Amino acid sequence: MKSGFPDALEWRRDPITGVWAIIAPRRLERPYDFDAGEEEGRGYPCVFCEGMEGCTPDAVFCLQDESGRWRVRVVPNKFPALEQEGKLFWEKEGLLYEKMGGFGVHEVIVETPEHYASFVEFPLDQMERVVYTYRERMRTWEKEERLRYCLIFKNQGMQAGASMFHPHSQLIATPVVPKRVEEELLRALDFYSREHRCVFCALMEEEGRIKTRLVFQNKHFLALVPYAARFSYEVWILPLEHSAYFTEVEELASFAEALQVVLQALAEALGKPVFNFVFHGAPYRRSPEDEGHRFYYHWHLEIIPFPVRMAGFEWGTGFYINPMTPEKAASVLRQLIDAKVGDHCGGN
Amino acid sequence: MKSGFPDALEWRRDPITGVWAIIAPRRLERPYDFDAGEEEGRGYPCVFCEGMEGCTPDAVFCLQDESGRWRVRVVPNKFPALEQEGKLFWEKEGLLYEKMGGFGVHEVIVETPEHYASFVEFPLDQMERVVYTYRERMRTWEKEERLRYCLIFKNQGMQAGASMFHPHSQLIATPVVPKRVEEELLRALDFYSREHRCVFCALMEEEGRIKTRLVFQNKHFLALVPYAARFSYEVWILPLEHSAYFTEVEELASFAEALQVVLQALAEALGKPVFNFVFHGAPYRRSPEDEGHRFYYHWHLEIIPFPVRMAGFEWGTGFYINPMTPEKAASVLRQLIDAKVGDHCGGN
Repeated sequence: MKSGFPDALEWRRDPITGVWAIIAPRRLERPYDFDAGEEEGRGYPCVFCEGMEGCTPDAVFCLQDESGRWRVRVVPNKFPALEQEGKLFWEKEGLLYEKMGGFGVHEVIVETPEHYASFVEFPLDQMERVVYTYRERMRTWEKEERLRYCLIFKNQGMQAGASMFHPHSQLIATPVVPKRVEEELLRALDFYSREHRCVFCALMEEEGRIKTRLVFQNKHFLALVPYAARFSYEVWILPLEHSAYFTEVEELASFAEALQVVLQALAEALGKPVFNFVFHGAPYRRSPEDEGHRFYYHWHLEIIPFPVRMAGFEWGTGFYINPMTPEKAASVLRQLIDAKVGDHCGGN
Repeated sequence: MKSGFPDALEWRRDPITGVWAIIAPRRLERPYDFDAGEEEGRGYPCVFCEGMEGCTPDAVFCLQDESGRWRVRVVPNKFPALEQEGKLFWEKEGLLYEKMGGFGVHEVIVETPEHYASFVEFPLDQMERVVYTYRERMRTWEKEERLRYCLIFKNQGMQAGASMFHPHSQLIATPVVPKRVEEELLRALDFYSREHRCVFCALMEEEGRIKTRLVFQNKHFLALVPYAARFSYEVWILPLEHSAYFTEVEELASFAEALQVVLQALAEALGKPVFNFVFHGAPYRRSPEDEGHRFYYHWHLEIIPFPVRMAGFEWGTGFYINPMTPEKAASVLRQLIDAKVGDHCGGN
């Protein structure tokens, strides 16, 4: 309270929109190793580099290769948006406001010991290590009963919101279910009630029939541009077989391949690898109603390429203006993938 | 259909999230007069400049001064996201998808004949002309029964999504109520049902009592940083007297002053005038239920300053991480305003 303002992490809920914001004053102190307008990171070696392990909190998870060298390393975020030691309370503030303690988990997944390695060009076994790590960390936090959701996401490139150049992604686990996931759950349940099947499974069947929005398919995964894509080159990757939980996926090699093929095509289409991706899966099972998720929800990865045009119209409406038809975007990506790996999804 | 892809404007609805996207391929053709990384606009004179009126569609509205010179000019957007000539239809596409014709209105409000004039430094009478124009255009489109909502917004600065340097704002009127407005209406109705009053009025009363989040107040308007601000320096401006419709505001001089004082303080705090603002008001009255809006909704302006951190966490959750406490942001803005116009809202 030195400054006279609260410096504790806190969740606050807007009484008009219902949206939660995490007020996290200490995030202002975090390091930032990009120069304005520059994609090249400064500060090699950085705190995520091999040999600099003493500069981060102790690793909570580590994958080593045969030689004993670490290849993926997970550390608590030093400038967290949420804290495990944070209090879990909910209280009203006056008639209108609600707040919660800043309880939650914020981890950094350092995806390689090498500062200058390119995520989209990782060897396939390294990409598999990364997605294996994602799954294991999600499994670990399932045991903490106070957490309801675990989000894994990646900000690739300064323009996509990354503050560190060294390849990394993030895990944030929260005591509330994200608004966007709630919205998807509600509509997926509604569809299930009417049609007695998963809306994502129905969507993949429909897209497989139409073909024009398919991007890539391998044995276990399908990548497509959604019918109502919000942005040019938005892509989703979904497991072909129905599954609500990323924690239950066994086909990690197949997923790593799909992820890499799609991201490489995106980087080529955009001229640079700048994007966000986020995992959406069912929340952790904490109540009898949560058991239903297994039937009607379907985990997937959403890739949001730069540049995203979040301007007045989008802020004001919650709708989006996409200047590229999904069919055109899918066609461009398919052609780039065809040129590399040959025909792969029967699209045209 | 030259490219083999549809080039018609079209609304498409995502079956999983319910969000509408406007697929607007012709938006890719619009001019862009910023250089990358530069705030200075190129291309003076541009199509919005005095003397270049022949380069835009004919003006649909114009404010002149005593000498007959135009001071504010409204023209249809040449590269619209929606079209008045667009068809108004809604149809299902297969089991899953919904689409609508690209019907709507997209206008540009050219806020000054002078290319290099700074919006936040406009003389007050010019700012009043601009907000008067906003109100008149909103009133005009209320007469078109097929439109349900009218959004006025401004993208100030290239980093906030502006494609033209010359000061301008935009009007987009739509046949559907925006998702964000729907969400606010729902919660405002819920509050009204429980408390028998408008939630925005209750909020202003509470904030007036607490004082720490107030930014500015004049005779008819209050500016504050919301309790659960999503971004550093997010500010809302609300009419003190209950009113659901910007179309009904009479105190335009007072509003112009509040808007200018707040934007100047923001520009100073941020080091540059880069922001979005959006008007939220009740939808046009088209059904008996819409009549209730008058009681429980309250129009307001939301200002979203740059930089906004829309990255993986925000995309994945719909929640926000704000590194600056609302109390701190309000205090900074109050001090900047105090230094200019003296004590104004009794805050500390």
